Amino acid sequence: MLPNLKSVCAGLIGCALTLQALADPLPSWREGDNKNAILEFVTNVTNPESDQFVPVASRIATFDNDGTLWTEQPVYFQLIYALDMLKEQAKKDPSILDSTMLKAAVDGDFKTLMSGGKGALQEVINASHADISLNEFEQSVKQWLATARHPKTNMPYNAMVYQPMLELLSYLRDKGFTTYIVSGGGQMFVRAFAQDTYGIPPQQVIGSGLHLSYEVINGNPQLTKKPDIAFLDDGPGKPVGIATIIGKKPIFVAGNSDGDFEMLEWGSTNSLPSLGVIVHHTDAKREYQYDRDSHIGKLDKGLSEAGDRGWLLIDMKEDWAKVYPKTP
Amino acid sequence: MLPNLKSVCAGLIGCALTLQALADPLPSWREGDNKNAILEFVTNVTNPESDQFVPVASRIATFDNDGTLWTEQPVYFQLIYALDMLKEQAKKDPSILDSTMLKAAVDGDFKTLMSGGKGALQEVINASHADISLNEFEQSVKQWLATARHPKTNMPYNAMVYQPMLELLSYLRDKGFTTYIVSGGGQMFVRAFAQDTYGIPPQQVIGSGLHLSYEVINGNPQLTKKPDIAFLDDGPGKPVGIATIIGKKPIFVAGNSDGDFEMLEWGSTNSLPSLGVIVHHTDAKREYQYDRDSHIGKLDKGLSEAGDRGWLLIDMKEDWAKVYPKTP
Repeated sequence: MLPNLKSVCAGLIGCALTLQALADPLPSWREGDNKNAILEFVTNVTNPESDQFVPVASRIATFDNDGTLWTEQPVYFQLIYALDMLKEQAKKDPSILDSTMLKAAVDGDFKTLMSGGKGALQEVINASHADISLNEFEQSVKQWLATARHPKTNMPYNAMVYQPMLELLSYLRDKGFTTYIVSGGGQMFVRAFAQDTYGIPPQQVIGSGLHLSYEVINGNPQLTKKPDIAFLDDGPGKPVGIATIIGKKPIFVAGNSDGDFEMLEWGSTNSLPSLGVIVHHTDAKREYQYDRDSHIGKLDKGLSEAGDRGWLLIDMKEDWAKVYPKTP
Repeated sequence: MLPNLKSVCAGLIGCALTLQALADPLPSWREGDNKNAILEFVTNVTNPESDQFVPVASRIATFDNDGTLWTEQPVYFQLIYALDMLKEQAKKDPSILDSTMLKAAVDGDFKTLMSGGKGALQEVINASHADISLNEFEQSVKQWLATARHPKTNMPYNAMVYQPMLELLSYLRDKGFTTYIVSGGGQMFVRAFAQDTYGIPPQQVIGSGLHLSYEVINGNPQLTKKPDIAFLDDGPGKPVGIATIIGKKPIFVAGNSDGDFEMLEWGSTNSLPSLGVIVHHTDAKREYQYDRDSHIGKLDKGLSEAGDRGWLLIDMKEDWAKVYPKTP
């Protein structure tokens, strides 16, 4: 395509710019140090002549999901899904709301819910995510995504993915990287949309999960989610999840909160060249502005240490020309 | 290459046969119903004109390891590794043999060891596999494989892989399948040799595993194996491991024992065409002969039900022209 365009363009003003724009793999990233650092890193590790060259099999990129690939405010979208499911179930059978916390949850009383700590969240997850087969759960999440709308933007939740990160995922894959999601959220929840939304297949989605039970019901084997957590893929759990599922240390790590700190730290000690990236939520107008004091996606330690550790702090407001695919 | 050979061959007796042999992707499989059924299945699911066609993304093949890809007698090779490690450690510090079971283990007193059941095996695993970093463990397994020899054949353990299964793995990969190992043995143990021995990268090895702990020691993050089991990838655990790591149901499943029954059963309910294969150890001369009464790799239920369920029973003695790569 380029040679044709070149000949059409020959002698015309502006063609040099057009070609440059066409060649830009990250058009929603504004020119600047951060964009340059990403382009330079990828160029070096994929250049066989460079002493920074990394073979394709080791080009592992891991991305957090909530707050890194899509929005996580006002609360994690999966929690909104859980509350919606709980409300739906309670309509059919109000007796399932058999505790203060479950009642608070369906009433939207987050203050009471949050005061209940992990135990309260586990109650909500058990009531909304457990005792359901993997197939039914996948269908339920897909249906919810197709109909539910975000309280602030009124967009479908999976339209609130970051256009610059979609471009980064594609760019890395074009350059021979395998892109993984390493989410503190539910592995099966993320898998329900990761292929369509991010182009990431199930085997490249790592996340938290409930225990699964294999049961043969009327001759039909099925896997059922049970109400206890098998793996928590957050903080130090992220390197553990990566080691278990990928078995290789990433060379590119992207996160946005202190829950990604250990994944960034671990990736940085790769004997191969590596790059860490932190999405800093600085854009109150187009998205949300939060860091050290947020109840969701708290970024404190990472913000303090990014400079010394050589991690890029992506300033959402300054570095991104666009936030969501369908809005500026 | 073929056109050249064809022109050289033109008019010569036997050239048709030579060409046929060259084209055979499974040369160590004797002609017969089982070989034909495998070839026919793969031909159908990869033929876009066939109503059995399966897209590349769904061509998932899962293989058990012990007894399916390599020998598992007189005991699982990983247990021999564990005992060797234990003996080595006890030489340096005899005080680690602080229980009847550990003493029995280093004395090769399998009768006492087996009488201790799972608890005894857990003791041996903890003493030999735990409190070691993943990197050190990988090096240890590699070094052991390079030097240890099998008590009966005097071959390195990783030379006791089945040539027909190596051909099957390559054949499936050539046809767009992704080949996974789903082992009841240790995931990290199998990963130490799976790439070199089977051409299977770490992210395609599923297995049992101890809990991993992320620790930063003198500024160096490392993952350490802890003395408690995180996941047992055996029996009903195999579909669970596949659902967690791959997130797709396999269309080709190979096993050899009742520990593979649920994996075979689950794969057989794929809405896509699927094939199940059981390696039946019938060759006392070239390998080992065992099934219903074996203490290792017991095949009872699978043997009884294979026919009704449409799984191929591979008769090692009859179906395989060759067992190991370097011996007949």
